[in-house]
Amino acid sequence: MREVVVLGVGMHPFGRYLDKGLGDLAEVAVLAALRDANVPAKDIQVAYVGNSIGGLITGQEGIRAQTILGSFGFGGIPMVNVENACCTASTAFRGVWLEIASGLYDVGLAVGVEKMFLEDRARTISALISVSDIRLSKLGMQFVGEAAMRCSRYMRKNGGTKEDLALVAVKNTYNASLNPYAYRNKAYTLEEILGSPLIANPLHLYMTSSIADGAAAAVLCTKEVAERYGGKPPVTIAACALRSGRYREFDPLDSDEVPSTITLTAQDAYAQAGMEPKDIDVAEVHDAMSPIELISCEDLGFCKKGEGIPFLKEGRTKISGDMPINTSGGLCGRGHPIGATGIAQVAEIIWQLRGEAGKRQVANPKVGMCEDSGGVLVDGDNAAFTNIILKR
Amino acid sequence: MREVVVLGVGMHPFGRYLDKGLGDLAEVAVLAALRDANVPAKDIQVAYVGNSIGGLITGQEGIRAQTILGSFGFGGIPMVNVENACCTASTAFRGVWLEIASGLYDVGLAVGVEKMFLEDRARTISALISVSDIRLSKLGMQFVGEAAMRCSRYMRKNGGTKEDLALVAVKNTYNASLNPYAYRNKAYTLEEILGSPLIANPLHLYMTSSIADGAAAAVLCTKEVAERYGGKPPVTIAACALRSGRYREFDPLDSDEVPSTITLTAQDAYAQAGMEPKDIDVAEVHDAMSPIELISCEDLGFCKKGEGIPFLKEGRTKISGDMPINTSGGLCGRGHPIGATGIAQVAEIIWQLRGEAGKRQVANPKVGMCEDSGGVLVDGDNAAFTNIILKR
Repeated sequence: MREVVVLGVGMHPFGRYLDKGLGDLAEVAVLAALRDANVPAKDIQVAYVGNSIGGLITGQEGIRAQTILGSFGFGGIPMVNVENACCTASTAFRGVWLEIASGLYDVGLAVGVEKMFLEDRARTISALISVSDIRLSKLGMQFVGEAAMRCSRYMRKNGGTKEDLALVAVKNTYNASLNPYAYRNKAYTLEEILGSPLIANPLHLYMTSSIADGAAAAVLCTKEVAERYGGKPPVTIAACALRSGRYREFDPLDSDEVPSTITLTAQDAYAQAGMEPKDIDVAEVHDAMSPIELISCEDLGFCKKGEGIPFLKEGRTKISGDMPINTSGGLCGRGHPIGATGIAQVAEIIWQLRGEAGKRQVANPKVGMCEDSGGVLVDGDNAAFTNIILKR
Repeated sequence: MREVVVLGVGMHPFGRYLDKGLGDLAEVAVLAALRDANVPAKDIQVAYVGNSIGGLITGQEGIRAQTILGSFGFGGIPMVNVENACCTASTAFRGVWLEIASGLYDVGLAVGVEKMFLEDRARTISALISVSDIRLSKLGMQFVGEAAMRCSRYMRKNGGTKEDLALVAVKNTYNASLNPYAYRNKAYTLEEILGSPLIANPLHLYMTSSIADGAAAAVLCTKEVAERYGGKPPVTIAACALRSGRYREFDPLDSDEVPSTITLTAQDAYAQAGMEPKDIDVAEVHDAMSPIELISCEDLGFCKKGEGIPFLKEGRTKISGDMPINTSGGLCGRGHPIGATGIAQVAEIIWQLRGEAGKRQVANPKVGMCEDSGGVLVDGDNAAFTNIILKR
């Protein structure tokens, strides 16, 4: 396997764009990534497009990549359409990584794009529940309810209050307020968060991610090819791991003996990179429901089991802390256009490693991680898990 | 890149199964492939699931692989959900090939599955048009109309009659009548075919592929690992090529100067395999509308440009001919559950190369090809193209 680098990233700001389609959103992100990489469009040899619910939102199944990228001139090259719930974009990213790592191609494009805001709100909600196992979600057990149960269980076991859990959203909406690509770009106080509507106890509205329209793109290539373009310093993909959820003979959410699939996927990534949790300087962690960030920090090995709340309250996960988490604002702050999120995480880490994160800049990070998990299985775990480690 | 082999294949017979879901169909194909490969399910390290319209048919987007394979016990391993119109299953097959060729995994599973027959016929038709660019298909220009125009243009340029074109369906429905996995398993006479309803001149009903429910699966591994299982002789993947369609500055359908994307994809595959058209002993060729087989035989280099009709009428593409095409019955005879077709082609070629094709067996073939193309782009080519070469 060859070493693969990220040469450029680009985003369409996450937000509400009723007049824009998937092609419009993707075009902005892709052209920004190509400019950032200093790579002409004609040099792209392979492309993966991640999109999760476009089939139900737009009616276009089958050839989403070709219609989206074709709308601004791409064609002829191999294109693969992938889905994987909230790991959709990171799965697209992994696909391009593999095409290049294998030796098949030298330069590729990974795109994640999602359109969620419609005049017809019911259509979005109906499409959104299709990202989890519909046998479960049609019974009314949706993302928020499942996460609320996990949070309640976490507090029962480890102590902590709803106020403690809400502090994740205080941190992340503050970070988002510094991020020009974020949708929810206002720093909310603890009072505002706990004053927002209660969705599923202990989760209030501002502790959950917002639907959004958006796109993110990354240009990947080999180290040798990167030199040819003479652009910004390339960032190496040290690991790219993927797993699916397990059905439960075990109880991954309430046991310290059985590692969660987030932990197993991170272990895959650490092994691939030859690293340990202490080697990670900055991380984007999947916080579709913001308190889950605490549990994931434990699962990723950033702090000990059960110590997520003190880890947060000591300020260690702030931009100025020793283990900054979700400097972008995370899913809760930046917004969560499902099929775009995974590559938006990559973009944030690339900007951090290059020192381009502006007011969100962490002091001199060398290694960053992007963790995603998505979908909920009947009687099981989440459905898809990815873990990407990037280093400069 | 490492050499990858196909160790086992399996299918759920294509047909009309109102009481079966995607999981039921896939389970039969997957368990058959595992038995055929002599590989226990627990040894599968990575899986790709191809499905084209399940989002619109079942309401399940995002995590189709996890819900389908999870319904009979798979979990924990990396799973990728892919779409690519009629190349969906072949794209899934290519994904697993790449995972193993790259060195990342040793044993993998590729699955293609589609559910098309519903009590609600309108839902299937609505989903079906979503496989082409919906900007085109919503204007009424669907697969059949597009193919009919290509056929008319072909006859205007090269001569030939509707009767000549219908002979492809005579051959392929005869082949299908010998195939226990085929849906349309009756040999139709020329009179019956031309007596079937006219859909879009010159195409009559029996010259078009039928919608169907079905699944196909393949177990892939490295050559070394294959020996460990001591099953049937492994078949080597000599090439696995993928392209997307091009928007037209050129006119690929009416020009001998500009090669079609089918030709370009085949050239990729021939180069990868170090082969020429004359090295292919048997081929499955995408004939969603059966006369397109003639044009594709020319594009693949099996006969000269404009000579598809004499090539057919001389009997060269029959099972007993020197270049047997669609011994399975092809899409027209076997049926065309969109997301399953590509791996059904692979299964047929594997059976041919192993001498297991029963009454359809070609005399001692050593190399076989699977060609697919699917989706139609606005003002362009088809959307996705694959070409797989297998050798024993």
